[in-house]
Amino acid sequence: MTRSYNFYAGPSTLPLEVLEEAQAGFCEYKNSGMSIMESSHRGKEYDAIHEEAIANYKELMGIPEGYSVLFLQGGASTQFAMIPMNLLGQDQTADYVNTGAWASKAVKEAKLFGNINVIADTEKSAPATIPAIDTLEYTNGAAYLHVTSNETISGAQWKQFPKCDAPLIADMSSDILSREVNVADFGMIYAGAQKNLGPAGCALVIIRDDLVEKVVRVNPTMFQYKTHASKNSLYNTPPSFTIYMMCLVTRWIKEIGKENLFAQNVRKAKKIYDVIDATDFFTGCADKACRSDMNVTFNLPTAELEAKFFEESVKLNTWGLKGHRSVGGLRASIYNAFPEEGVDKLVDFMKDFEKRS
Amino acid sequence: MTRSYNFYAGPSTLPLEVLEEAQAGFCEYKNSGMSIMESSHRGKEYDAIHEEAIANYKELMGIPEGYSVLFLQGGASTQFAMIPMNLLGQDQTADYVNTGAWASKAVKEAKLFGNINVIADTEKSAPATIPAIDTLEYTNGAAYLHVTSNETISGAQWKQFPKCDAPLIADMSSDILSREVNVADFGMIYAGAQKNLGPAGCALVIIRDDLVEKVVRVNPTMFQYKTHASKNSLYNTPPSFTIYMMCLVTRWIKEIGKENLFAQNVRKAKKIYDVIDATDFFTGCADKACRSDMNVTFNLPTAELEAKFFEESVKLNTWGLKGHRSVGGLRASIYNAFPEEGVDKLVDFMKDFEKRS
Repeated sequence: MTRSYNFYAGPSTLPLEVLEEAQAGFCEYKNSGMSIMESSHRGKEYDAIHEEAIANYKELMGIPEGYSVLFLQGGASTQFAMIPMNLLGQDQTADYVNTGAWASKAVKEAKLFGNINVIADTEKSAPATIPAIDTLEYTNGAAYLHVTSNETISGAQWKQFPKCDAPLIADMSSDILSREVNVADFGMIYAGAQKNLGPAGCALVIIRDDLVEKVVRVNPTMFQYKTHASKNSLYNTPPSFTIYMMCLVTRWIKEIGKENLFAQNVRKAKKIYDVIDATDFFTGCADKACRSDMNVTFNLPTAELEAKFFEESVKLNTWGLKGHRSVGGLRASIYNAFPEEGVDKLVDFMKDFEKRS
Repeated sequence: MTRSYNFYAGPSTLPLEVLEEAQAGFCEYKNSGMSIMESSHRGKEYDAIHEEAIANYKELMGIPEGYSVLFLQGGASTQFAMIPMNLLGQDQTADYVNTGAWASKAVKEAKLFGNINVIADTEKSAPATIPAIDTLEYTNGAAYLHVTSNETISGAQWKQFPKCDAPLIADMSSDILSREVNVADFGMIYAGAQKNLGPAGCALVIIRDDLVEKVVRVNPTMFQYKTHASKNSLYNTPPSFTIYMMCLVTRWIKEIGKENLFAQNVRKAKKIYDVIDATDFFTGCADKACRSDMNVTFNLPTAELEAKFFEESVKLNTWGLKGHRSVGGLRASIYNAFPEEGVDKLVDFMKDFEKRS
């Protein structure tokens, strides 16, 4: 097969080695006479995977003692509600930074449960940007501060995280495990799996014990972090095959070395930004200071040229370069497993297209 | 490989043909240059699967116009909360029949949101049983009536469903698509996928339009049926690979013919019950009138013999015959894809074990 270059924003490219390993053992896992997706979530085969995946996240992300690593369903969108349901009392205030489409969805859900102070708002900024952390004014006694680590649609990414007294909560759906982050600085980190971690169908939640224990209202059993933390994400049947794939991806990161992966991510993004900056033909959609290493967003001089660029890109076995339908333009999502040669191919195409235009 | 016989209560056996097809196309789906699990949930490859799965459920279950077929995350356990959140006003009453462990979990969550009238309670009955429908006394003006079609743990199954003025809602997690059901009799049917429909990680929800539209309180976006119905289960990223596997399973059912499958289910269960009834050595845990065709539960004369039976069964490449940890005994879960020859093997083993004891 000729692998396509998958620039979609997610679900996204998985390492071919991971796919091949999963394929080889797909019908029978380790002489068990059945697929891992048929195995009981309370049996020893799946249990080993579940535990290994947790241990690997702890190792790769340097997760300290005192945090739980959870596998939940419903994506980051469900977390937008679960966070305030568990952590924001009706009369309490939480701080949110609204940096774009995803942050604003988190704000919208949180408003159902308590007072929300949007301490900075760059949602409509053009170019897309992230507020400078020294300009942020935090609410005294806020229940937490919520940020969106990387705005998948606009292509703006926090390069440093704010420090405040309240627990810091970050939606890292589109840049988790793509760079070094000090987990101890956060009360909670969460991410849908389908960009950097594995296939769609699981959200990874890393949450500090004091937040797991917090009770601010009566919640249904499934919407309490405590339910899942106390049962090691096995209160009900987990999405076991998705977690198996996530486990294989953690092994792949360990094998290539996270430092190498993180360096490659910076290099991949820089290659595209360098073409964008070389002339006036391409325009980056995000401020240089906060350009995403995961979602490179850019415009061409006209909408017609953008349409032509996209059409030609599809013929090159290259998928998903269209910007999000809400903003237009072009977007190259280059998550962890996106191969560097795909970036080289895009860069060559960009230069060639410019020459011909 | 030698296929094991997987009697686990779920995740459970999938048709080998389905596994083999998924394996063959695992790294590259239909010359797309990528796995279906890497494909965008807004691309044409995944879209075709999503639509086919819905169409196949409509055809196989005879779902009439006026119902939505939804793919949600969080399993049936999340539905226990979503149902009252969407359909039970704070001052309204919903009727529940408590037939066992799963029904009682549904009751527990519903109590957080309104008045619950448990109109019949057989949770502690031994043998396990289902109330006679002509003894049920419904609440006037109830928001809905909730039943658990098949109690996975006790092995009791509704053979006929109650008829009342309120919309009937059934948790069919462990017997959906295992027998003919008239969907038009129900306001809503839901089921975790991991028993009869596919791998773990998706709940199928079939819900009538008037219930989708009902608003009894302000709910977070992800917990509203309307969100998912209005976006055809694509409001956020769906568990796309799980739904792909579910689609393949629907094709498999169409291929073998649902009538054949349903007849085989009855035959498989009867073979085991016949051994149970032949002598006093085995005792069925459920009333004869409501014995489950999916989860056959039984006891041996002593706990020691049960332990010995289970130990020997494991050596026969036969997994998961132990009863649920909360009730003990033995349980053979024989869902749609469980092969009849596995039942024959179990029956032979049961007879042989009895002879030797």
